[in-house]
Amino acid sequence: MHFGRHISGQFNVELESIRTHVLTMGGLVEQQLSFAMQALHSDDVELAKRVVRDDHKVNAMEVSIDDACTRIIAKRQPTAKDLRLIMAIIKTITDLERIGDVATKMAYVAIESPSSKESQFHVSLEPLARQAIGMLHQVLDAFARMDVDAAAKVHKMDDKLDAEYEAVIRQLMTYMMENPKNIPNILQVMWSARAIERVGDRCQNICEYIIYFVKGKDVRHLGDQGINDALK
Amino acid sequence: MHFGRHISGQFNVELESIRTHVLTMGGLVEQQLSFAMQALHSDDVELAKRVVRDDHKVNAMEVSIDDACTRIIAKRQPTAKDLRLIMAIIKTITDLERIGDVATKMAYVAIESPSSKESQFHVSLEPLARQAIGMLHQVLDAFARMDVDAAAKVHKMDDKLDAEYEAVIRQLMTYMMENPKNIPNILQVMWSARAIERVGDRCQNICEYIIYFVKGKDVRHLGDQGINDALK
Repeated sequence: MHFGRHISGQFNVELESIRTHVLTMGGLVEQQLSFAMQALHSDDVELAKRVVRDDHKVNAMEVSIDDACTRIIAKRQPTAKDLRLIMAIIKTITDLERIGDVATKMAYVAIESPSSKESQFHVSLEPLARQAIGMLHQVLDAFARMDVDAAAKVHKMDDKLDAEYEAVIRQLMTYMMENPKNIPNILQVMWSARAIERVGDRCQNICEYIIYFVKGKDVRHLGDQGINDALK
Repeated sequence: MHFGRHISGQFNVELESIRTHVLTMGGLVEQQLSFAMQALHSDDVELAKRVVRDDHKVNAMEVSIDDACTRIIAKRQPTAKDLRLIMAIIKTITDLERIGDVATKMAYVAIESPSSKESQFHVSLEPLARQAIGMLHQVLDAFARMDVDAAAKVHKMDDKLDAEYEAVIRQLMTYMMENPKNIPNILQVMWSARAIERVGDRCQNICEYIIYFVKGKDVRHLGDQGINDALK
């Protein structure tokens, strides 16, 4: 990956190191989300506790990458594409950290209300979570290669996630109306579903940062059409 | 407000201009949240539509401030406290924009399900929203003066907001169990309550950026105790 030709080879090394850290952080967040889903689905309280325990690692990575970015700006005074890379990274890690929080919240549901195991309500969050984890995986892959076409593709996947989310909510709502005494537990599952749906939005944000870095165009708030225009 | 002594008086002017824009954006977001609450509470669809219509202004301010920050980094190569200010601003506007999204979501609830007017469920979101708007107002004030003590005070207010939120959810849940046919409408109110609760978290984030700017310490993920330690 070449970010440009720098007089200082050391600068390249530093940028590459930060980028590697972002990918490591992304991998950890993806794992946290996978484990949280697994814990919720199979009532595995031990696994859920592990997710909660490991959240501090995600947080620490956010703080340390942010610090590295600030130091590289102060020391190397980057401009143009180098600066855009650092800006994209600063924003990306915020979203990754929040996705980590989603995993932790799901893990807490698994720990505190094991009776809210979603499958007992004839609704599985697994397809929804699997889609969200898939989006995260693909956006990290797009980030690794700084591939705008892949990013645009991931951006479009959110519609499918939203549709799946709506279907899950409708099912849970029907079940609630039929079994009012289960409402508190079903609400826990609903909160988890909503948190998973938000993962898609965060992955879309990361897609937008990738496009910003590569194309120098800020496509936030412009939707899929704005992205298509930027990639023309 | 002096950020340091710069050889270039123009640099000070530019920093001051960005800071003013952040406060303007904050004021607009506060107004959006107020209007959205009012629209939801009094079934005012026209006001709700205005909130939705004005969301693009919030988005545009985020994009333009971000761009100004990137340009000032490239041009002025700030270090130390100046750089921390810019970093704090870049993060603050992300949270402000998301608070703006909360207002828009509430406005959509007011438009799409006027029958979910919260007061009909014997639960008012107004005290909750008023607290959240109060936190936002105070954190913007702390930001304007870069007052870490005020920021620490706002940070602690979130506990009260969380408690109020829990109480609202419990009330709504009881009402749901008693009136299952109202579940879809009550859920709309619940989503709004949850979105308002998240405003508190975002205000806490802004408190942390203020402390980061003034003290040079990253207190994220450390809780109120970590903040107390940083201010010693």
